[in-house]
Amino acid sequence: MIRAVVWNEFQHERENEVVRAIYPDGIHAAIAAALAADPGIEATTATLDEPEHGLPQARLDATDVLVWWGHKAHGRVSDEVAARVASRVHEGMGLIVLHSGHFSKPFIRLMGTPCSLRWREAGERERLWVLNPAHPILAGVGDRIELASEEMYGEPFLVPEPMETLMISWFEGGEVFRSGLTWKRGAGSVFYFRPGHETYPTYHDATIQQVLRNAVRWAHNPAPAWKAVGEAPNVPVDKAPEKIVQKGGSLHKAGEEGYR
Amino acid sequence: MIRAVVWNEFQHERENEVVRAIYPDGIHAAIAAALAADPGIEATTATLDEPEHGLPQARLDATDVLVWWGHKAHGRVSDEVAARVASRVHEGMGLIVLHSGHFSKPFIRLMGTPCSLRWREAGERERLWVLNPAHPILAGVGDRIELASEEMYGEPFLVPEPMETLMISWFEGGEVFRSGLTWKRGAGSVFYFRPGHETYPTYHDATIQQVLRNAVRWAHNPAPAWKAVGEAPNVPVDKAPEKIVQKGGSLHKAGEEGYR
Amino acid sequence: MIRAVVWNEFQHERENEVVRAIYPDGIHAAIAAALAADPGIEATTATLDEPEHGLPQARLDATDVLVWWGHKAHGRVSDEVAARVASRVHEGMGLIVLHSGHFSKPFIRLMGTPCSLRWREAGERERLWVLNPAHPILAGVGDRIELASEEMYGEPFLVPEPMETLMISWFEGGEVFRSGLTWKRGAGSVFYFRPGHETYPTYHDATIQQVLRNAVRWAHNPAPAWKAVGEAPNVPVDKAPEKIVQKGGSLHKAGEEGYR
Amino acid sequence: MIRAVVWNEFQHERENEVVRAIYPDGIHAAIAAALAADPGIEATTATLDEPEHGLPQARLDATDVLVWWGHKAHGRVSDEVAARVASRVHEGMGLIVLHSGHFSKPFIRLMGTPCSLRWREAGERERLWVLNPAHPILAGVGDRIELASEEMYGEPFLVPEPMETLMISWFEGGEVFRSGLTWKRGAGSVFYFRPGHETYPTYHDATIQQVLRNAVRWAHNPAPAWKAVGEAPNVPVDKAPEKIVQKGGSLHKAGEEGYR
Repeated sequence: MIRAVVWNEFQHERENEVVRAIYPDGIHAAIAAALAADPGIEATTATLDEPEHGLPQARLDATDVLVWWGHKAHGRVSDEVAARVASRVHEGMGLIVLHSGHFSKPFIRLMGTPCSLRWREAGERERLWVLNPAHPILAGVGDRIELASEEMYGEPFLVPEPMETLMISWFEGGEVFRSGLTWKRGAGSVFYFRPGHETYPTYHDATIQQVLRNAVRWAHNPAPAWKAVGEAPNVPVDKAPEKIVQKGGSLHKAGEEGYR
Repeated sequence: MIRAVVWNEFQHERENEVVRAIYPDGIHAAIAAALAADPGIEATTATLDEPEHGLPQARLDATDVLVWWGHKAHGRVSDEVAARVASRVHEGMGLIVLHSGHFSKPFIRLMGTPCSLRWREAGERERLWVLNPAHPILAGVGDRIELASEEMYGEPFLVPEPMETLMISWFEGGEVFRSGLTWKRGAGSVFYFRPGHETYPTYHDATIQQVLRNAVRWAHNPAPAWKAVGEAPNVPVDKAPEKIVQKGGSLHKAGEEGYR
Repeated sequence: MIRAVVWNEFQHERENEVVRAIYPDGIHAAIAAALAADPGIEATTATLDEPEHGLPQARLDATDVLVWWGHKAHGRVSDEVAARVASRVHEGMGLIVLHSGHFSKPFIRLMGTPCSLRWREAGERERLWVLNPAHPILAGVGDRIELASEEMYGEPFLVPEPMETLMISWFEGGEVFRSGLTWKRGAGSVFYFRPGHETYPTYHDATIQQVLRNAVRWAHNPAPAWKAVGEAPNVPVDKAPEKIVQKGGSLHKAGEEGYR
Repeated sequence: MIRAVVWNEFQHERENEVVRAIYPDGIHAAIAAALAADPGIEATTATLDEPEHGLPQARLDATDVLVWWGHKAHGRVSDEVAARVASRVHEGMGLIVLHSGHFSKPFIRLMGTPCSLRWREAGERERLWVLNPAHPILAGVGDRIELASEEMYGEPFLVPEPMETLMISWFEGGEVFRSGLTWKRGAGSVFYFRPGHETYPTYHDATIQQVLRNAVRWAHNPAPAWKAVGEAPNVPVDKAPEKIVQKGGSLHKAGEEGYR
């Protein structure tokens, strides 16, 4: 059973009638329900206003894949929780970043780039072209996804060159965008998936839901958490794989920890 | 003329006699002198204890390539300066990270990973194998570099898969390490170069100096700084490349800035 | 059940007593037995001297993962079979290329590079360092694999920059080599795994066998074969996703096939 | 001075009036003239019907960057010349593949994939979005290129994941395409640039010409040709960097060449 947690800042749905009408229980609830349609996925939710944003260390340690939706309150996510999420990705937790989550703290921290882009909120037509129909994230999707109304995101999208470009969007207004991208960061897999503006019913679309389920399965790393991923162990001379003798000056005393 | 700045925390050389004997004027001075042997490079220096660590915004704006050496005082580099360096890389400044700089704040910020590794300070033999002798960073290097005494760094090196793997080190004690790696982050090129422990005369080696000069030339992006790299401009409906009409609900008012 | 086929040129074992003593039934038989220890893998074999080298189209169509060992008879593999193998990889078949298979026709065809390297047959010690212990190919391997005697392969290894560098080898004689590399080609995953010289009992090593089983599982793409991967379909004007009208001159008549 | 050779199959211009009216002296002549506007580039041409397609070994040896346009006669290019071109790329020659050259023999050989795509010849509007305005290939281009009439190419484009995605095209009919992609193959740099259908005046466009000049400069590798790139030298025991002794059985006699 893959343990997925769907995180949502959960602000628009409580403040704005248009959004609430589409997602009365919040975007997180809609996504979690979509994930739960896969009997191999156990989906729970967490939101910004919970203590530690619903993501205390113990819960993240028991999370296989984290799905992230945020927009207007990126700045309210604590640096500590953002760092915790990034560290869990390094250890092997999968991360799926949705739509406006491009500007979220965990994503920027993992990318090392501004993650900026152009945008327009005009309800225009989006067509996501599939670059590899045999990729596990795209199983059952066909050659493209059509969305009647979405926010436009336009290139350049300031992320590092991805491991895989899986989808590219065409927009009615004339722009394009790389809409499905993957990276690895340590033992963890990261997938960015573009659609999902809060004023449109994107997460109720059956194909979008299929991509989300596929992505959770793809991002799941069944290996034990790589707890030592951030450590910098000293290997003393007498533990070197080959027999060597100490030569020359040394700054560190035997057994001393390295600097950070 | 390429404007290079060599940054050094400049601590060991003032505190430790072994290091001072090798680099009496500091590692930065030795590297800057090596760079200056190229008439196309203008090399200056900056150190931790200067105001703003010698890297105020105006100076970084006038820097084409920054070379970074740090070790015991990574934590004393301010987050503000680290962010400033990363932003300049996004705009197009080249960055060359040396040896123990793997744990520096700017490098970790740009990589999005722990940048951890194994290490041993035993003065052992290092042999850096060249994977592409025709790469500009390796011009004049031949098929390998031999260093009589160096600190060992061992894999796994926790960085994202690089754009290019240019050198791999063999160590007497039995470990290996990817010693020359490149990445792009926005408009900026990043090169990590492993050798350079402070207790050995590595930066006095003629071939190492050649690699440093080559790397500065490689990392130099002559394009104008990409000042807008982190912006997220709204493209209003009447400025869309194709004629469209507004459809559906909208959260943002016309002309409003996006969320961060 | 994953259908794996282990292909071996099967020459050395019949011609050379040293090799025969180690692999009396051939390298393919030893590897197939190792794979069969995984109840999810069904392993059969094919060899050079069978009709169509044991790889007629119908058999490849029913193969999920192909394992390839060749050395002295690369030139005897027909271009037609090599092309067939490459096409099946594009459709989604996994390919695991072992040791001297670096110079095999299917591998060179899929890489687009010479796949050359340095070598020495001196029975020296090889230590394969693991770069990501949480990668599925490296499950259960620990931080390294030690082999008492192997042929040396040295960098530069002339392959395209890989998707992932998973292992790097240290050799007693002073060289290094990227020993575990992955790529994608179309819908197919490719893994190159260095060890396995015919004069040493490498494929009897339990950890090496574990890597082989892991690799077969990793390389298996459960998606339906992407049969159309090499097609270049014309999309006529009246089938365009957006309504357009024909403009300007045209070389092709409506419905005509494109050039190759 | 960069020695560029523009290769064109030169068939359409002699057979078809529409094409001849646009490129009376052939596409190669138009491109060579555009390149020659850069005083640092010396541009000559070669065509299919010349002996050895105008590309004998001696000429390729004296070529820094080869530009390739082909369409209806890919099959008439000899395998020998295609292999020669690929080998020169491995040695360090730059290669710029234009438009329908995606199906050319040298490109398929270097990519290792089918290089297939969708297409439509309807004279529709193409807009190439720039993903990195600070990249040398895109100097002076701005944020996009608009072409009034072009052939449509649609994803999926069956090439290996590129080193860099530099441009993505939007088409009037609803498709998208990665229009500027880079790879390295050995010492050589490869750039694929999509526009350039023979029935439209694309190569007369000033911005397209600028990209071509930029690309030639980018693809130029000033390093000496890597003549040994395809060799597989034996390193005898007494030439090993570290002192070792021969152990175990050996298949090869001392000094013998390896198998291919």
